[in-house]
Amino acid sequence: MRFKFSLMAIGLEVVMIVLFGLFVEYDIAHQVNATRSPKTDQFLQLYPLFQDVHVMIFVGFGFLMTFLKKYGFSGVGFNLFLAALGLQWGTIVQGLLHDKGQNFHIGIKNMINADFSTATVLISFGAVLGKTSPIQMLVMTILEIAVFAGNEHLVTNIFQASDTGASMTIHAFGAYFGLAVAGILYRPGLRWEHKNEESVYHSDLFAMIGTLFLWIFWPSFNSAIAEPEEKQYRAVINTYLSLVASVIMAYALSSLVERRGRLDMVHIQNATLAGGVAVGTCADMEIPLYAAMGIGSIAGIISVLGYKFLSPLLGNKLMIKDTCGVHNLHGLPGVFGGLASILAIYFGMSAGSSSMAMQAAALGSSIGSAIVGGLATGLILKLPIWDQPPDENCYDDSLYWKVPKVRELDPQFFQHAHHNHLEHEV
Amino acid sequence: MRFKFSLMAIGLEVVMIVLFGLFVEYDIAHQVNATRSPKTDQFLQLYPLFQDVHVMIFVGFGFLMTFLKKYGFSGVGFNLFLAALGLQWGTIVQGLLHDKGQNFHIGIKNMINADFSTATVLISFGAVLGKTSPIQMLVMTILEIAVFAGNEHLVTNIFQASDTGASMTIHAFGAYFGLAVAGILYRPGLRWEHKNEESVYHSDLFAMIGTLFLWIFWPSFNSAIAEPEEKQYRAVINTYLSLVASVIMAYALSSLVERRGRLDMVHIQNATLAGGVAVGTCADMEIPLYAAMGIGSIAGIISVLGYKFLSPLLGNKLMIKDTCGVHNLHGLPGVFGGLASILAIYFGMSAGSSSMAMQAAALGSSIGSAIVGGLATGLILKLPIWDQPPDENCYDDSLYWKVPKVRELDPQFFQHAHHNHLEHEV
Amino acid sequence: MRFKFSLMAIGLEVVMIVLFGLFVEYDIAHQVNATRSPKTDQFLQLYPLFQDVHVMIFVGFGFLMTFLKKYGFSGVGFNLFLAALGLQWGTIVQGLLHDKGQNFHIGIKNMINADFSTATVLISFGAVLGKTSPIQMLVMTILEIAVFAGNEHLVTNIFQASDTGASMTIHAFGAYFGLAVAGILYRPGLRWEHKNEESVYHSDLFAMIGTLFLWIFWPSFNSAIAEPEEKQYRAVINTYLSLVASVIMAYALSSLVERRGRLDMVHIQNATLAGGVAVGTCADMEIPLYAAMGIGSIAGIISVLGYKFLSPLLGNKLMIKDTCGVHNLHGLPGVFGGLASILAIYFGMSAGSSSMAMQAAALGSSIGSAIVGGLATGLILKLPIWDQPPDENCYDDSLYWKVPKVRELDPQFFQHAHHNHLEHEV
Repeated sequence: MRFKFSLMAIGLEVVMIVLFGLFVEYDIAHQVNATRSPKTDQFLQLYPLFQDVHVMIFVGFGFLMTFLKKYGFSGVGFNLFLAALGLQWGTIVQGLLHDKGQNFHIGIKNMINADFSTATVLISFGAVLGKTSPIQMLVMTILEIAVFAGNEHLVTNIFQASDTGASMTIHAFGAYFGLAVAGILYRPGLRWEHKNEESVYHSDLFAMIGTLFLWIFWPSFNSAIAEPEEKQYRAVINTYLSLVASVIMAYALSSLVERRGRLDMVHIQNATLAGGVAVGTCADMEIPLYAAMGIGSIAGIISVLGYKFLSPLLGNKLMIKDTCGVHNLHGLPGVFGGLASILAIYFGMSAGSSSMAMQAAALGSSIGSAIVGGLATGLILKLPIWDQPPDENCYDDSLYWKVPKVRELDPQFFQHAHHNHLEHEV
Repeated sequence: MRFKFSLMAIGLEVVMIVLFGLFVEYDIAHQVNATRSPKTDQFLQLYPLFQDVHVMIFVGFGFLMTFLKKYGFSGVGFNLFLAALGLQWGTIVQGLLHDKGQNFHIGIKNMINADFSTATVLISFGAVLGKTSPIQMLVMTILEIAVFAGNEHLVTNIFQASDTGASMTIHAFGAYFGLAVAGILYRPGLRWEHKNEESVYHSDLFAMIGTLFLWIFWPSFNSAIAEPEEKQYRAVINTYLSLVASVIMAYALSSLVERRGRLDMVHIQNATLAGGVAVGTCADMEIPLYAAMGIGSIAGIISVLGYKFLSPLLGNKLMIKDTCGVHNLHGLPGVFGGLASILAIYFGMSAGSSSMAMQAAALGSSIGSAIVGGLATGLILKLPIWDQPPDENCYDDSLYWKVPKVRELDPQFFQHAHHNHLEHEV
Repeated sequence: MRFKFSLMAIGLEVVMIVLFGLFVEYDIAHQVNATRSPKTDQFLQLYPLFQDVHVMIFVGFGFLMTFLKKYGFSGVGFNLFLAALGLQWGTIVQGLLHDKGQNFHIGIKNMINADFSTATVLISFGAVLGKTSPIQMLVMTILEIAVFAGNEHLVTNIFQASDTGASMTIHAFGAYFGLAVAGILYRPGLRWEHKNEESVYHSDLFAMIGTLFLWIFWPSFNSAIAEPEEKQYRAVINTYLSLVASVIMAYALSSLVERRGRLDMVHIQNATLAGGVAVGTCADMEIPLYAAMGIGSIAGIISVLGYKFLSPLLGNKLMIKDTCGVHNLHGLPGVFGGLASILAIYFGMSAGSSSMAMQAAALGSSIGSAIVGGLATGLILKLPIWDQPPDENCYDDSLYWKVPKVRELDPQFFQHAHHNHLEHEV
């Protein structure tokens, strides 16, 4: 991948710099006489929320994807690369769309929205984890963020639908986009369990770092772009309560569906977060607290059931291998979140102007654009020019990374260790 | 544990949802004409502190308990489950007690206090880590938070004692509650060192993630519910200085008490935090800076000495096995913190109305209610209906978790690896 | 190291307590009638930024230094010890220098500046990692912070140069100080690759925890002491953009310089951060956004090239072994950041009063004082009284730490494991 990847990355960075030079400026009002401008005031207030979201993107998503025994470097490493690229491209695309192609200003809101646009890519990344090259991921980042920004514009500005925590526009979108790509890139050689597609004890603990930081800061994610004051406040509390409920239900169901009642780390790492996904659309609505907890409970349940019963079906019947199970963490709970918002509006709980029809349109448009965009992206990624890894090298860092001479799980590890051992004894 | 645990968890979550439906509402003043209400203002100011405390509860306590070589999934995983349950139950119990059984509002202060109530459970969890079933822990969570809320109500509202950073009401309480439970659940089969009761190299590094996030955010813990402005400010600085002093002393003592002067990870993971515990009660008092540093220094010293000399004594003579040594991190420094506050008031350093007698009453009531509550809870947990793990399966995830086929420290790991090795060579 | 280290640490802590008692007070204005003082207002606004920087110091630097297979306890453990010591000493030295030896007040700004002074020590620590005793590190901490505070005073107050994000006064200073120490402490026995001087798979993942938290919070580091409002805002955005650009370039170059195009974890762990270092001096200047991205891009490039081509040269020709490659992460990008600020002022982009000559003087003084101070410190550390580890025990925790009986990479690990294995089969 030496020259192709490097030159594409350098080229893209140069393009980004040029685009920033052409279109983007600081969002600062030069107010010499004012001691404090509203802009900078807002900046300081939102900055801690931005940093929470930032931790989710880089540490949360990054470590969540280190669960595979030999793909941890790629999980956390490509996550960093894709996010850094996505942040720049998302800023440009969202800014140009929002301001109709004119110069625009970058402020704390753009930075949060850029993190959001990146989140869709990282969700889709989870669906194809281990089976794609960095170049394929780079291309997917560029294409997916463009489609995402288009759909978000449609949902927010045309439909004027409500989706504060982005259950539909980020989570369902990212999941179905990724699944569509995974479906197109399906390879018979990966149908049955791959020898590398498993975790080891410590890789599962690394993944818990990701889970916990995602879980803790999810209220910031769902409230970061909510209207200030009451709605933002409400979004925090609803998300917090939905999350705690989904933890309890994820544990209960994980134990329930296993023959001997043992918990499954895959469920704990993922389904505990489903409450954050599902409550997103309703987060700032005037739903009662027990409804937020109910949404979280149901999300935890459907997420575990998805992992247990739906993922094997998808993989074996529909030929869609979903490495991280993003359908169960982002897809199903995201759709459920959209449906919940329709119900909430039916019961008069919306504080805004969004209607049931527009929420339904937003949900349909998010899923539809994700599938169409994902299929098209998948076809492009299937071109034999992007260095897709061969079947036997999937889920293995050593194709793309210099791996330490000693890797705890390699045969070489034991050779080396025995060697040392002998040296030591002699 | 299949049905018993699952059904209890589901049942409890349903109860929580019903209780929230009956008693809890948003803490939002509908002020249409005001651009900013004091409530939401406070929300935004305290939200970063809340998130700091939240990181301590989930990442801090969670990873601190991953130090055992085969009990990492349970350490971080049950911590998440218990905390999610405790947050809900703590909100209800504290709210009902505070508002005398009437409907109450949930706001950022309740959320911080719920984290606090949960902290007591997680401290006690450390004392019985590895020797109890998830069902036992679940029962303990419900009982302990009820007792905690009662004692806290007594200390704060009846005695009107001062305990901002909760050295007495959280740390000493949680430790002695846990020790009382551990004493009742004592089993001769676990008296001598269990083959699983040890760390490996990487499990000790995982535990350091917990230590560091606890250490960094402890000033937020001790100041989160302090009176705004000066007292909050003071609580941050006193805690910060006590913590740095306890780090230096923990390192010095750890090296001093070992024959060859080597540091012990158990001390570093725990005694470095003792300064945060001990300065809690005095944190917002008008003590001089050198006093805060002195408190931290002494706390670091007694914590290491406790690990070295007292824990073996407790385990072998008093039949109280304290897995994480919570007595040394939370018990002794918590009691010392309470005593320090009496001294501070004697020297006229209290800014509030608390008296020496009331501080002493608070300390006595915290320890007393903890021991009585812990003994009663222990007796309930001793009933043979909670699936307590047999001696040989203690400190081992594989009873409650699906553990990866390959676990770095299992015999199977080597079989598997050798198998691969042979395949590779042929 | 039993008594020497312990007694020095205890003695130093006593000295710190006395110095705090003599010179330091709270920075609180007792304003009984005012509902909110400007001081406490600033405290609450800067506290989240302070905590971000705190996470960088303890988790960021700490885990970044766990990449060596057998030196993780020391990496993260000595980092904690040195930082806790440095915070106290930095507060004293900076306060006395700033207030000309009089009593001074400790507030949030001092706490941030103390973290900064500590950062220089942790950078230098990276250069000598694995080759020095805790006592040597302790002595270096005391000496380096004194020299740092002197140079910072010169740069800020005498030259009145601009260095908000401290590319020169922290990063270049810390790197060249450490390199000078490493040069003096050079030992022929460590010239060629040491058997312990390598990473294993999981140690590289632990190091990524450090990298990511440094990366995420770098905008807070560069803006924490910027002038409030516009300049602080600008410092955040410039740093953010420089960082994303340096990530892309670090990945591109890392792949480009390897024969087979594979990424190198050393580059990803470090060069992705070079953008944060390099943009520091210019962070609050009125540079255009594309310039910030350009600075980050160039920093990423020179950092990877430094690791690939310069470090081997330094090690083999100049007899300077730089364990973590701090020259490539902090040295080169720091110097480049200083030069960039001169260019920025040439183009009239400075908002302040700093001149090109004064920036150049600041750069020269930072490097010069670092080298002179580092050489002198190195000579002191070379005295045979500080228990420097023998060659064969370098990069190995077991000299200073009680290491678990079972360490995944020890020969004993395999003996133990095989033993278990046999027991299991019989």
